[in-house]
Amino acid sequence: MNSYTQQFIEEFKQENQNQGRLLISCPDQPGIVASVSNFLYEHDANIIESSQYTTDPDKGTFFMRIEFRADHLKAKETHISEAFKEVARKFSMKWKLSCVCDLKKTAIFVSKELHCLRELLWEWQSGDLMTDIALVISNHEEGREIVESFNLPFYYIPANKEIRKEVEQQQLDLLDQYDVDLIILARYMQILTPDFVAAHPHRIINIHHSFLPAFVGASPHKRAYERGVKLIGATSHYVTNDLDEGPIIEQDIMRVDHRDHVTDLKKIGRSIERSVLARAMKWDLEDRIIVHENKTIVF
Amino acid sequence: MNSYTQQFIEEFKQENQNQGRLLISCPDQPGIVASVSNFLYEHDANIIESSQYTTDPDKGTFFMRIEFRADHLKAKETHISEAFKEVARKFSMKWKLSCVCDLKKTAIFVSKELHCLRELLWEWQSGDLMTDIALVISNHEEGREIVESFNLPFYYIPANKEIRKEVEQQQLDLLDQYDVDLIILARYMQILTPDFVAAHPHRIINIHHSFLPAFVGASPHKRAYERGVKLIGATSHYVTNDLDEGPIIEQDIMRVDHRDHVTDLKKIGRSIERSVLARAMKWDLEDRIIVHENKTIVF
Amino acid sequence: MNSYTQQFIEEFKQENQNQGRLLISCPDQPGIVASVSNFLYEHDANIIESSQYTTDPDKGTFFMRIEFRADHLKAKETHISEAFKEVARKFSMKWKLSCVCDLKKTAIFVSKELHCLRELLWEWQSGDLMTDIALVISNHEEGREIVESFNLPFYYIPANKEIRKEVEQQQLDLLDQYDVDLIILARYMQILTPDFVAAHPHRIINIHHSFLPAFVGASPHKRAYERGVKLIGATSHYVTNDLDEGPIIEQDIMRVDHRDHVTDLKKIGRSIERSVLARAMKWDLEDRIIVHENKTIVF
Amino acid sequence: MNSYTQQFIEEFKQENQNQGRLLISCPDQPGIVASVSNFLYEHDANIIESSQYTTDPDKGTFFMRIEFRADHLKAKETHISEAFKEVARKFSMKWKLSCVCDLKKTAIFVSKELHCLRELLWEWQSGDLMTDIALVISNHEEGREIVESFNLPFYYIPANKEIRKEVEQQQLDLLDQYDVDLIILARYMQILTPDFVAAHPHRIINIHHSFLPAFVGASPHKRAYERGVKLIGATSHYVTNDLDEGPIIEQDIMRVDHRDHVTDLKKIGRSIERSVLARAMKWDLEDRIIVHENKTIVF
Repeated sequence: MNSYTQQFIEEFKQENQNQGRLLISCPDQPGIVASVSNFLYEHDANIIESSQYTTDPDKGTFFMRIEFRADHLKAKETHISEAFKEVARKFSMKWKLSCVCDLKKTAIFVSKELHCLRELLWEWQSGDLMTDIALVISNHEEGREIVESFNLPFYYIPANKEIRKEVEQQQLDLLDQYDVDLIILARYMQILTPDFVAAHPHRIINIHHSFLPAFVGASPHKRAYERGVKLIGATSHYVTNDLDEGPIIEQDIMRVDHRDHVTDLKKIGRSIERSVLARAMKWDLEDRIIVHENKTIVF
Repeated sequence: MNSYTQQFIEEFKQENQNQGRLLISCPDQPGIVASVSNFLYEHDANIIESSQYTTDPDKGTFFMRIEFRADHLKAKETHISEAFKEVARKFSMKWKLSCVCDLKKTAIFVSKELHCLRELLWEWQSGDLMTDIALVISNHEEGREIVESFNLPFYYIPANKEIRKEVEQQQLDLLDQYDVDLIILARYMQILTPDFVAAHPHRIINIHHSFLPAFVGASPHKRAYERGVKLIGATSHYVTNDLDEGPIIEQDIMRVDHRDHVTDLKKIGRSIERSVLARAMKWDLEDRIIVHENKTIVF
Repeated sequence: MNSYTQQFIEEFKQENQNQGRLLISCPDQPGIVASVSNFLYEHDANIIESSQYTTDPDKGTFFMRIEFRADHLKAKETHISEAFKEVARKFSMKWKLSCVCDLKKTAIFVSKELHCLRELLWEWQSGDLMTDIALVISNHEEGREIVESFNLPFYYIPANKEIRKEVEQQQLDLLDQYDVDLIILARYMQILTPDFVAAHPHRIINIHHSFLPAFVGASPHKRAYERGVKLIGATSHYVTNDLDEGPIIEQDIMRVDHRDHVTDLKKIGRSIERSVLARAMKWDLEDRIIVHENKTIVF
Repeated sequence: MNSYTQQFIEEFKQENQNQGRLLISCPDQPGIVASVSNFLYEHDANIIESSQYTTDPDKGTFFMRIEFRADHLKAKETHISEAFKEVARKFSMKWKLSCVCDLKKTAIFVSKELHCLRELLWEWQSGDLMTDIALVISNHEEGREIVESFNLPFYYIPANKEIRKEVEQQQLDLLDQYDVDLIILARYMQILTPDFVAAHPHRIINIHHSFLPAFVGASPHKRAYERGVKLIGATSHYVTNDLDEGPIIEQDIMRVDHRDHVTDLKKIGRSIERSVLARAMKWDLEDRIIVHENKTIVF
């Protein structure tokens, strides 16, 4: 990490040591908001922002994200978490309470195409992606120069079908070693095994270079060209064991026309992929996403 | 109102007689969400959707919109409102509690160009604008045919600078007579006097045919053409005494190029105006908008 | 046709009686542009606008659209067409020369949902779709009122799988009788047989309520909801025998989120369908579209 | 220039040594297209792509851009140019004929904010901006590291109002020395004098961080926030002596809402500025832009 980025991050941590986030999902019933807001009020926390969504009032699932401020939050975080368990138990909640100043640790996986990696590194350096980028792993050497220019560790691990198991073991060891919370596949062109995915459930974000569910699988731009579509897109999603079928986080498109050949679609596509992946990563880092039945609620 | 639309509206009222909305703004301080959600819980109301925003935590202004369900809401609405006054007093709230089944009464003002009027009538007929359109007022006869085909009253009131006062008095009398809550200027090409505006504060929505603050005033498309812009827009805003300076509710744009002459810009513009005005009207009807310091919070 | 629309159309015909269009496709080779522009110059035609595209220079297919002005065009149109045959022969061209004042005759097919029909009728009445709408055919009665309010003939022909052959024969007879050039399926919810399609090759435009090739077939909004996409779209295309696989003319999308249920997607979708179909129809009416290998070149 | 970029550029030059471009503007009259296409045909040039536009047929100005292929173009370029003078004289043309393989030399000016500079360097390195970046000039040191990492010369020339003349002389000397064709102000925060602008007419492209003509001048994001707009934009334009009043090349916008403070608008704005400036630069490099009466025709 260079000193410039370091400074950004330190300032951010400083500014946000009293800022907390609470993510909740539970069966809907009356009284949830009252209980949670009472709890926060009693713990001297002021709600700054809150969003909620219910799939089906009274019968469905209730989701909530709260951002709050509380003096000395860092000091009393454990105490609050402990106390919240009672509320959580009452409503059968899945929940997560965290201090905004505790940055997630991220690993970026990349292959030969560097546009997504570069975008993430720049956004990070500009203070727009508040995370601790722990390491970059690649099955090619192309990314080394830029990664090391940011003073980040770059691990070159060649990969192919035959050695997939060994490769993934090496990767998993690194993720453990660096205590990684979030894995970003920034155009990493290797398929992950179910074991790898299972080790990091809903913690791997991929960018697919099509507007899913159109053009699932390989060579989407070639197929888009052949079909003669007038828009091309990109989709970021959490990785599951079904290829390109995981919960969609964000999508976007750009207009193309008959003059655009496959190489043009790829160029245009790169620009969409960059921004779509950066947005999805940002929302995950800010704990804005809840996965429910293979879909995402993005607050 | 034709029987088709009538049926839509009756169904909507039926479905929403237990659905309420609460809009709040007040100085921010800890405990607001807890108090409000406790209040609703105690009155057997289940929060379905809630949004909030604070301009500046602890010091700024707090805004909240809650949508809730409560059995027999219509019967106990007065009682709830009465009881809520205590909460409101404690936090110095401006607030509004309403039953979703009580539709706002709307007046549409139009001149010669009918595209916005038609859009609103169709959206209304399709059940996408839940309001009671009370009447249409115009300074031209062009709109009569379509308005009367919807079985709505059409008032032709010729207008010009010289007779502005008398014209507005006639209009205000009609608005009173029909007990109108919301006035939509659907390309009504007369300037309103401060007296008229003062009689319906933040209850008059205009559509301006430019991307404000660019091209304030007359002939925006002509000026856009002369400036050679590459995008044209439309802006819906609440009317204040400063022409085209009221709080902006919604804006949108479309791409144009050097081949588009003023008439093309007008055509393209019409399509933007239609959708921008319809969205702004919809958000007002759903009580999604709070005006604060000449800006809008749209929940 | 009401008198207002009638007037628009007469003015347009008057203004464009000296305006012509030439559409060309042929194997690429040097000299095509020179030959065509010489030809027009020798026939006192001034080129106003021209566009061209070559799939692969020297080897591929060459496409060109020219808009030109020539005094007394209507009088000498046959002569020019006759004379152009020599140029066309030399380069093995497929071509079409027409006077802009000769409007295409259009038939609109519709079922119960009227939003696309209404959009087309309004755009037409506003002078934005220059065509002679010959008739509207529907398998339901819902559309009759609005169609007849425009003084257009409305034919109610009930349809279902069992009687498809007879129904289509009735429809084809009507299309013949009215001498129809272009058929617009404005949310017509019946499948056409290969015989029907073959009778009007690349002259039937459909609107599909998804971003093709995603969600081919029935209930695209339901499937979009289940997949959790963040954008929904609409696609207009020429009808071929492969369902939803014909050449795409235009597509567009709008953003949705987790709060949007299937009914919301349908509402949002209607707005996209309206504008996408209107654009596709406009481009066809202006002879801007050439179909090549199941794709469209749109000039 | 690093070896990777060098290779891209050499390949491009190689592939395009027989590809030419012809840009024309002249008073409209019949026969222009015929004369030009005959000329090219006689010189064994095959037209690949052509676009034209006439402000007003017969009376207005005619604009044309042709891309063509001719064997041994580089060798006979001077001869063709010489011969074209006769055609040009006949129609009083302003024109420019060039070989695509002759890249324009570019200078980038930047201040402290590097997002536009980075975007251009990356796009250039990816082969998406075909130019010879000659040098980068800055009134701050922030950009040095990234510029030098691309092996490009970086000139630090401190600037302020008092020393403007001397600074500009230094800059003009450098532009002369490097024989620069195009100057990109990539968020260069100094005003240029009329003398500087006059030295490079329509050869200086600026990026303004608003949707012009809204928010001309300083601090557009602050003023956008205060006005409460729902969209913010960016505009690239050629620099003239009237601040922010030069011919607009490209504009784009993104959606914002009440939650976005000035710093958020700046962040969102950066992303628009990057892509808008890159597109404008690309179009200039490809000779797609003609300036006419303070507007641009972009082919």
